[in-house]
Amino acid sequence: MASTTTPRLRRSKSVYKIEARKGLERKERVWRPDKPIHRHADSFFSTSSGFTNYRGLLNLCLILLVLSNMRLVLENIIKYGILANPFDWIHLFLEQPYSWPNILIILCMNIFILFAFSFERLFTKGLLSERLGGVLQAINVAILLLYPAIVIYVLHPNPIFSVACLGVVTIVFLKLVSYACVNKWCRDEIKEDGKKNFRRRKSHSVCEANGKIDIHGDIKSTLVSYPDNLNLNDLYYFLFAPTLIYELNFPRSARIRKRFLVKRFIEMMFLSQLMLALTQQWMIPTVNNAMKPLAELDIYRVVERLLKLAIPNHFIWLIFFYWFFHSTLNVVAEVLRFGDREFYRDWWNAETVSRFWQDWNIPVHRWASRHLYKPLMRCGCSKLTGSIMVFFLSAFFHEYLLSVPLRMFKVWAFSAMIGQVPLAYVTAKYKCLQGTMGNVIMWLSLIMGQPVAILAYVHDYYIINFGTLHNQTISVGH
Amino acid sequence: MASTTTPRLRRSKSVYKIEARKGLERKERVWRPDKPIHRHADSFFSTSSGFTNYRGLLNLCLILLVLSNMRLVLENIIKYGILANPFDWIHLFLEQPYSWPNILIILCMNIFILFAFSFERLFTKGLLSERLGGVLQAINVAILLLYPAIVIYVLHPNPIFSVACLGVVTIVFLKLVSYACVNKWCRDEIKEDGKKNFRRRKSHSVCEANGKIDIHGDIKSTLVSYPDNLNLNDLYYFLFAPTLIYELNFPRSARIRKRFLVKRFIEMMFLSQLMLALTQQWMIPTVNNAMKPLAELDIYRVVERLLKLAIPNHFIWLIFFYWFFHSTLNVVAEVLRFGDREFYRDWWNAETVSRFWQDWNIPVHRWASRHLYKPLMRCGCSKLTGSIMVFFLSAFFHEYLLSVPLRMFKVWAFSAMIGQVPLAYVTAKYKCLQGTMGNVIMWLSLIMGQPVAILAYVHDYYIINFGTLHNQTISVGH
Repeated sequence: MASTTTPRLRRSKSVYKIEARKGLERKERVWRPDKPIHRHADSFFSTSSGFTNYRGLLNLCLILLVLSNMRLVLENIIKYGILANPFDWIHLFLEQPYSWPNILIILCMNIFILFAFSFERLFTKGLLSERLGGVLQAINVAILLLYPAIVIYVLHPNPIFSVACLGVVTIVFLKLVSYACVNKWCRDEIKEDGKKNFRRRKSHSVCEANGKIDIHGDIKSTLVSYPDNLNLNDLYYFLFAPTLIYELNFPRSARIRKRFLVKRFIEMMFLSQLMLALTQQWMIPTVNNAMKPLAELDIYRVVERLLKLAIPNHFIWLIFFYWFFHSTLNVVAEVLRFGDREFYRDWWNAETVSRFWQDWNIPVHRWASRHLYKPLMRCGCSKLTGSIMVFFLSAFFHEYLLSVPLRMFKVWAFSAMIGQVPLAYVTAKYKCLQGTMGNVIMWLSLIMGQPVAILAYVHDYYIINFGTLHNQTISVGH
Repeated sequence: MASTTTPRLRRSKSVYKIEARKGLERKERVWRPDKPIHRHADSFFSTSSGFTNYRGLLNLCLILLVLSNMRLVLENIIKYGILANPFDWIHLFLEQPYSWPNILIILCMNIFILFAFSFERLFTKGLLSERLGGVLQAINVAILLLYPAIVIYVLHPNPIFSVACLGVVTIVFLKLVSYACVNKWCRDEIKEDGKKNFRRRKSHSVCEANGKIDIHGDIKSTLVSYPDNLNLNDLYYFLFAPTLIYELNFPRSARIRKRFLVKRFIEMMFLSQLMLALTQQWMIPTVNNAMKPLAELDIYRVVERLLKLAIPNHFIWLIFFYWFFHSTLNVVAEVLRFGDREFYRDWWNAETVSRFWQDWNIPVHRWASRHLYKPLMRCGCSKLTGSIMVFFLSAFFHEYLLSVPLRMFKVWAFSAMIGQVPLAYVTAKYKCLQGTMGNVIMWLSLIMGQPVAILAYVHDYYIINFGTLHNQTISVGH
């Protein structure tokens, strides 16, 4: 200890001397005829200067990003010319004779919806026991989910339309499950109310309060109670509403804001065309060019192609996110005067993988939390089991949406989703992987995960359908 | 006015109603059996939500920048293999017989330095009149600047060494001008002191104050006064010091910080090799590939090449900035115990073009301000004239450093520098071009200006030296 004190003292003394001399010099030098300018100072990059303002460098990053992508766009146009064609969808629709099964599937869904509705009506009339009704409901939604998969697998229509069709089927499936659950809760509540007096009194007093306001002002409670909600209007409103969970009284906005609606609608139209154009112009040539190195297992070129694919894929994914979760869902909500517009939270700031999955898709997150995670918690499952089950269901539907239309049961999408569980577990465990680092990990898994899966699926698709990767090119119309 | 009031009132009333109903609904809904989750909410991207936290997107930008450049590096290595060779400089040095003129020029500079020193000594001894001495000094520095240009133009040694050599000549020229000016100021001061009594008393009292401190403590004023500074030690210290303006008493640091010195030295070595490698691997192939479209005036491809060149060029420029202004000048300053390390300010945050030019190269800025701009102000010139003269001098030296070694008197560098005057004028005039926008303009002129000049010079170099652009490739060793 003593040995280190002496030099420290010496240094601090010398610092004092320097300070004193500096003051003296400053006073003296200001009078000197050579007009001195130099003074003791550290360079800004030296940590001792304490300078930390690098705001301008962020502008530089953005500029470099724009410039390098402008160059890629130019390079692409020079190489391929204009490949984008906004009317490809229409061609596809008119020339593809097998696209009708998808429309028929969507129309036939009404049968299952009406079945689900009838079960609810029979429950209230006491014509159906809870146990038998539950089994019938389960069979109903199971068939709803299975038969489109079989039809699409057998007839093998255009995969793009099939994915969209199965997406709609999945949404209706989730909605009908929620519809059945919530109505069950209401029936249970009424039965319990019949047993307990206390509860009834409370709901009575609420009704009285409502009544008073009705007399004094024009504010009128319009809340619907079970079983008044059991009509087709209410069910179809729920099926079209931008949410997956059922409620008897959705928050409704006062009026349709026309300017807002027009803005979102224009966004919706423009962005869907932009996504199509970027896919045709940028994604498809890049995927095609990746097939040769993939066939030859040239690892450098595969990585290079992967990185080249990652950028447009991520841009398209970001546009898709905005297009679907902001523009489209807001258009639907505005038309239906649906009040709750929280379709996403600020997942871009997510500092852990699990927060990303909680925030980016609020409708699915709410469904999973309400109808899977919380019931599992109530059954005494651990949080880890709950999370694994949620990711398992999500993985199942990802696989369902991809494997059936492409007619190949690879587990790439499934593994990618299930892989999120250990990733979330690891990032939650280590402090150093949180904060900004966690945000970076989230972005990296998003940017790099998708192109790996895309290349894997396209690779397998060619191997299965043509037996070789050479001289194969895909296009939107195949 | 009245016509707009009514709907406003109606709207505000309806908002009130909504608020009241919301409160009521919230109270009521919390008791309901369907466990409602939805509530009135705006999407985050809607301006009405008031959400503005997009911090995570900045991380995304950085990641995309790193990934896309990683891809470029991979693509480059796949295409060209490893072109970088750290020993190219040595080869160049040993195999190039004409590189000796540059070394001779640098050695001969001592003659001019000694001349400048002798003039100062003769002044103090009264053996040289101010007028004649001034003329001799001007002739001395003019020859110092001119004869290396003639030697290099005639013998045409390797342009890279020539640029470095002319750079050293320019630095010594600027330093000798400053040396002469400051010594002149000191002589003028002494002459005025001889006339006025008041001034002398003041300087006396300062001396007395110094004396007192000498008696009471060990703090000793070591300030040198004219003409004690006129010795070769002092002059050569100034010539090696990392500054362009002369002072009788430079601020000196207390000791050489060895760890700091080693860190900066390693940086200096590593970054110089990195710059060489990036130039060989990335810049030169890109410049070579740009020649064909330039010859064919294929405008799309020229722009594409320009953008492709801009990124590596800007990276190399940034590395050069750090290498020279932080690493190298700090090494020199640390070895010489030179106290003032302010070689640059935070130009990366500059919001106007003129602030960039004031902040990025402090030694030159100080020289221009002290020996050109302020004297011009004192002569009654306007600020605009002063700025134009500074940029004119800067443009002259840029041209001097490039045209002579390349043996072609194009005015690309000159025009680029002079073009900064109207750019600074325009950005200063319009409010909307300041702030972040001004910062973006600064970066863009930096990123895009240099590759345009590089392509212009390389293009002209081939046209002049070979008469054609086809099948020409450059390398570090030519």
